[in-house]
Amino acid sequence: MNKRVREILDFYRSENPGVLTNLARMLNHGRLAGTGMFVILPVDQGFEHGPARSFAPNPPAYDPRYHFALACEAGCNAYAAPLGFLEAGVADFAGEIPLILKLNNHDLLLNEHDPAPAVTASVKDALRLGCGAVGFTIYPVYEQLREIAEEAKARGLAVVVWSYPRGSGISHEGETALDVVAYAAQIAAQLGANIVKVKLPSAHLEQPEAQKAYEANHVPLEPLAARVRHVVQSCFDGRRIVIFSGGAKEDDATLLDEVRAIRQGGGFGSIIGRNTFQRPRAQALELLRQVMAIYAS
Amino acid sequence: MNKRVREILDFYRSENPGVLTNLARMLNHGRLAGTGMFVILPVDQGFEHGPARSFAPNPPAYDPRYHFALACEAGCNAYAAPLGFLEAGVADFAGEIPLILKLNNHDLLLNEHDPAPAVTASVKDALRLGCGAVGFTIYPVYEQLREIAEEAKARGLAVVVWSYPRGSGISHEGETALDVVAYAAQIAAQLGANIVKVKLPSAHLEQPEAQKAYEANHVPLEPLAARVRHVVQSCFDGRRIVIFSGGAKEDDATLLDEVRAIRQGGGFGSIIGRNTFQRPRAQALELLRQVMAIYAS
Amino acid sequence: MNKRVREILDFYRSENPGVLTNLARMLNHGRLAGTGMFVILPVDQGFEHGPARSFAPNPPAYDPRYHFALACEAGCNAYAAPLGFLEAGVADFAGEIPLILKLNNHDLLLNEHDPAPAVTASVKDALRLGCGAVGFTIYPVYEQLREIAEEAKARGLAVVVWSYPRGSGISHEGETALDVVAYAAQIAAQLGANIVKVKLPSAHLEQPEAQKAYEANHVPLEPLAARVRHVVQSCFDGRRIVIFSGGAKEDDATLLDEVRAIRQGGGFGSIIGRNTFQRPRAQALELLRQVMAIYAS
Amino acid sequence: MNKRVREILDFYRSENPGVLTNLARMLNHGRLAGTGMFVILPVDQGFEHGPARSFAPNPPAYDPRYHFALACEAGCNAYAAPLGFLEAGVADFAGEIPLILKLNNHDLLLNEHDPAPAVTASVKDALRLGCGAVGFTIYPVYEQLREIAEEAKARGLAVVVWSYPRGSGISHEGETALDVVAYAAQIAAQLGANIVKVKLPSAHLEQPEAQKAYEANHVPLEPLAARVRHVVQSCFDGRRIVIFSGGAKEDDATLLDEVRAIRQGGGFGSIIGRNTFQRPRAQALELLRQVMAIYAS
Amino acid sequence: MNKRVREILDFYRSENPGVLTNLARMLNHGRLAGTGMFVILPVDQGFEHGPARSFAPNPPAYDPRYHFALACEAGCNAYAAPLGFLEAGVADFAGEIPLILKLNNHDLLLNEHDPAPAVTASVKDALRLGCGAVGFTIYPVYEQLREIAEEAKARGLAVVVWSYPRGSGISHEGETALDVVAYAAQIAAQLGANIVKVKLPSAHLEQPEAQKAYEANHVPLEPLAARVRHVVQSCFDGRRIVIFSGGAKEDDATLLDEVRAIRQGGGFGSIIGRNTFQRPRAQALELLRQVMAIYAS
Repeated sequence: MNKRVREILDFYRSENPGVLTNLARMLNHGRLAGTGMFVILPVDQGFEHGPARSFAPNPPAYDPRYHFALACEAGCNAYAAPLGFLEAGVADFAGEIPLILKLNNHDLLLNEHDPAPAVTASVKDALRLGCGAVGFTIYPVYEQLREIAEEAKARGLAVVVWSYPRGSGISHEGETALDVVAYAAQIAAQLGANIVKVKLPSAHLEQPEAQKAYEANHVPLEPLAARVRHVVQSCFDGRRIVIFSGGAKEDDATLLDEVRAIRQGGGFGSIIGRNTFQRPRAQALELLRQVMAIYAS
Repeated sequence: MNKRVREILDFYRSENPGVLTNLARMLNHGRLAGTGMFVILPVDQGFEHGPARSFAPNPPAYDPRYHFALACEAGCNAYAAPLGFLEAGVADFAGEIPLILKLNNHDLLLNEHDPAPAVTASVKDALRLGCGAVGFTIYPVYEQLREIAEEAKARGLAVVVWSYPRGSGISHEGETALDVVAYAAQIAAQLGANIVKVKLPSAHLEQPEAQKAYEANHVPLEPLAARVRHVVQSCFDGRRIVIFSGGAKEDDATLLDEVRAIRQGGGFGSIIGRNTFQRPRAQALELLRQVMAIYAS
Repeated sequence: MNKRVREILDFYRSENPGVLTNLARMLNHGRLAGTGMFVILPVDQGFEHGPARSFAPNPPAYDPRYHFALACEAGCNAYAAPLGFLEAGVADFAGEIPLILKLNNHDLLLNEHDPAPAVTASVKDALRLGCGAVGFTIYPVYEQLREIAEEAKARGLAVVVWSYPRGSGISHEGETALDVVAYAAQIAAQLGANIVKVKLPSAHLEQPEAQKAYEANHVPLEPLAARVRHVVQSCFDGRRIVIFSGGAKEDDATLLDEVRAIRQGGGFGSIIGRNTFQRPRAQALELLRQVMAIYAS
Repeated sequence: MNKRVREILDFYRSENPGVLTNLARMLNHGRLAGTGMFVILPVDQGFEHGPARSFAPNPPAYDPRYHFALACEAGCNAYAAPLGFLEAGVADFAGEIPLILKLNNHDLLLNEHDPAPAVTASVKDALRLGCGAVGFTIYPVYEQLREIAEEAKARGLAVVVWSYPRGSGISHEGETALDVVAYAAQIAAQLGANIVKVKLPSAHLEQPEAQKAYEANHVPLEPLAARVRHVVQSCFDGRRIVIFSGGAKEDDATLLDEVRAIRQGGGFGSIIGRNTFQRPRAQALELLRQVMAIYAS
Repeated sequence: MNKRVREILDFYRSENPGVLTNLARMLNHGRLAGTGMFVILPVDQGFEHGPARSFAPNPPAYDPRYHFALACEAGCNAYAAPLGFLEAGVADFAGEIPLILKLNNHDLLLNEHDPAPAVTASVKDALRLGCGAVGFTIYPVYEQLREIAEEAKARGLAVVVWSYPRGSGISHEGETALDVVAYAAQIAAQLGANIVKVKLPSAHLEQPEAQKAYEANHVPLEPLAARVRHVVQSCFDGRRIVIFSGGAKEDDATLLDEVRAIRQGGGFGSIIGRNTFQRPRAQALELLRQVMAIYAS
């Protein structure tokens, strides 16, 4: 275990050795092993957005095994997916890569007002499938997380929280506002998350009261690296692993610039789904290679 | 166990041998034994639509044993029904045909807004009655499925999910829209279903975001076989058994054309209820003979 | 379901449909399907006598899959084995043959006085592995059977009892004495066994009090078929399935004569282990063919 | 995952993906990663024999962290120890090596007749500490194993069984007799062990009945590699991982010859404790290097 | 928290923060706060030996509050007693001193062969009474400790084990033999004890096998400090808190010499009962002052 991994694990001294073991496995797996940085492949879009929107751009991705293979070959630290996608491939890839079982999910078929994701799998499922962590999306509610995190940690599983505020009180632009993202990171950490996943923040500020505080204290809104640094700071001053999602599909130069900003701002890495599995495999591997090269540098 | 059955069972390597055994029993039962194809007789209409609407067209069908006998004589792979219908006939037909106990059901006596089916039987009931699988309808909600599927699989029972999106967010036409059906198949598979049952899709597209994806990626909407193929693809690229219901009563030529399209599109078969038990027994047997002949060819 | 199978199932009208289903599956499986007769392959000798004594005479039998294949190819009604042997093959033979999980077993490594078999697997294991029945050896004690049988039947599993009185109160000759075997069959049936397995009885009478009754009432001790008939009668007058083990390895002519006597005396069949798997596969299949031919005639 | 690892995992198709994952982790860890061979470091002698007898020959070994470091640096596949020894080092070595928690242990302070080990830790402890497997010693009894193995496997942990027959019915020489060791391997496998640990067998035969079977079937007693092959065969014809302990401290040439015989006879490796941690660290590492070189060749 | 306390807490990195908190409270309480040394007052003699034998020499000691006050005034790190004694005083001394609830106890009213202590209080009692640790006596058996320690630690309580081998296999002299005490310390630590309490060892060696190891490896038997050092080493090389009881009442000079030896040998302190509460309060306080002065020096 190198110094940086040891340092990160020391942020989590309250956790039992099982949780530390599973954090260490992710920190020491793949191309970024030992750097303290993360690139995680998440594939829950089949559930969250529907199959055609997710996989039609790259039809081999309809096959659940495609994503296991992609994450392994790219050298990601972990692969995250809902129950069905993991069940459909895990026996073929047993022990090849740390797995994160997404325990709650939401689909777009119903026209709901402030819809809460449904719990679709259990901590027992995660153990049965050999996963090292469970994933949970908070917002619009997070009360269910408490019991799940308690059980998961007692059984040695790390807890990864997707913290994406949304709902009737937040504008669409506000979902990526710096104050909202920083707040979302803080909430996830306060709820006991071992790994926090937030959106990359824009320079927008959503909440008037927060705006005043940002201005009064000269919290810089530019450049992106400064915003990342503020989010990292808001996540227990860098003592919780916080990683960023790139959001919608974008051009590669932009994405790589964002990765540079995440690294420069002290972020712990990226969770990259659609920008990889929605393009041909060779191109996806090349993009991930470039992303990891930046993080490893 | 022939090669196709072995191949299908290998899609389910994460499941325990009990689940594999019950899947194998269905795959190896009846006239389609060993073909990898399914024709399942479901009779939950007495519960879902009321007795007269369901059985008055063919009064012998009021007797629960009628349906066991029909499914056996026709050589279906399995027979699915709610608790009462199974209890009323199972002792007379013990071991004659694989049984699926529908664990939740919904009636039309109350005028509800987005009504959820009620859980009307348990995994323990399924074991006590000698069933090989449990059936569960999802939508408008599916959170209950999690614990039921966990218990069922732990006890060696296969899980069949009826995935019929409906509710305030979906137009009547949308319930069979290609994008909705494909999405419904994906959700059921993500929830861990071993067998997924969806409606035969129309060429309609319901969701604007999906529409864009279908157009951009040239997903064909015609003919029906192409739509079936898209649903099969959306169900883990053909690595989950997905079968189709014919929907409302229709003329036989149309139904047989649909069966040909299901077969041509790579579907795993049909679940045919009203089109059989609402006509005289001899005619029902003849229709099922023709359906199976197509699937077996 | 033919008339004889229906008649036998009617002996068990108190059992739930799950138990009936699993009895029916055994009655309708293999070369003796529908005859009401049984030939079951049991392979617990690796546990009970040690591997070399069991398998050295026919080394391919060291492989657990060998016995699944033998039972399937021979067309036995069921295959019975301890946990490990079933786990090691069941995924390859899912649904190919009804399985009986032996829930308790005993080894010969320790020099015990009246040793009780240890419970080595559970009803949950039987369900998880897709078994249709559990097997349990009674004597020198049978108290544990109560809870196990209760749980097994509630979950739809049939209960097969190996009833072999032994221990400090019974002479070696007495273990196969007619009065002891008839008594053992009665006890197993009284304990709620669905299928009773006893040793083929000799003409010896062990218990003085019983001897008087046999003499006073002219219970015939010869020929073997008469003794079988007495055991069948002692097992609820033929209203419980009672099958006979051949005991130690013997010459084929004797074994086939015994089979004829079992059939003539109204027994329900044989459980044949060592006489089959300890000889080359082709010879074993030929012997089983001859045995089944007698039972089917 | 290479071909040999895949082949070995296929022996365990009845197990859930969690168990497969933990087996894969051991198979793919350390210097023998991917070879299908094992060298496991077990340190339960502090408990079983007392601290001075165990550690006085090499005092740094009193420190629990010494053994973690030794197992890691030597490149063992796994490290096995009782609760206290694991708790005292695991946080420092989180994720560095697969861990096996010995769940039962026995000390020598009391003068017992046929003493049973006490259960000293739980499956929950194993999860909390991040272990991949639990270890359990059978003999003189094994009934407790059933529930522990059921719970462990349901939670994705592999089950390692130390099968060392002993007690009033077995002579001291008999504890390593070929027939006893082969039988012990069979019993552990029948009880559902994923990995079986037995003593290296001598050419002695203990049980008269077994002796006859060995003679009649010409089971070779020499050389050692032939005895190993017989034990492997007795352990489901090589379809269960069976590893051998070297027993008492011996000279290195002998030990390396034994390792060669294990490899030649088709054994899966060694569990080496006292021969390593009771000598200076550099010498221990050199010995383990030689052992692994033989297994890797 | 000073450096020595931090160092000791680091021995327990596998424990949760609740256990660390309670260990820290004892380490930072009383006259030895921050030294890493312990003097604990235990008063279970009323239960273990009877009231008159315990308290008649100093009648105020019949009052449970006497001992709370004594421990507080003397500046002990903790006070340990059975349920009744704690219940009778704890409300008056809430938060004044860390408390250890002895969970099992044994009386002398029955003349038993190898008597096991009875469990007389629960982890819930310890929480209800505001205790920071539970105490448990092992030998002649220790299987009960597993569940109690698991529950106690999960609730943040430290576990103190009284490890006093006795029973039919050990001579009276052997109960304090160096090899037995060292072994007893090892066993308690292996069972997961946070604090180990053993008797001060004599130079006697009890077990023939151990004797050989002591001679071969030149483990010194004299002076007492060397024996203490060996016990500390046997308790995970000093990485578990091990404290010593003085045994029977003795003269003060001897007792203080023993304390000097404990300190010199690296022990963590003393547990002193009868030598204090059986003399007048002023004399007891003076003795404890002298003991602590040695440990603090």
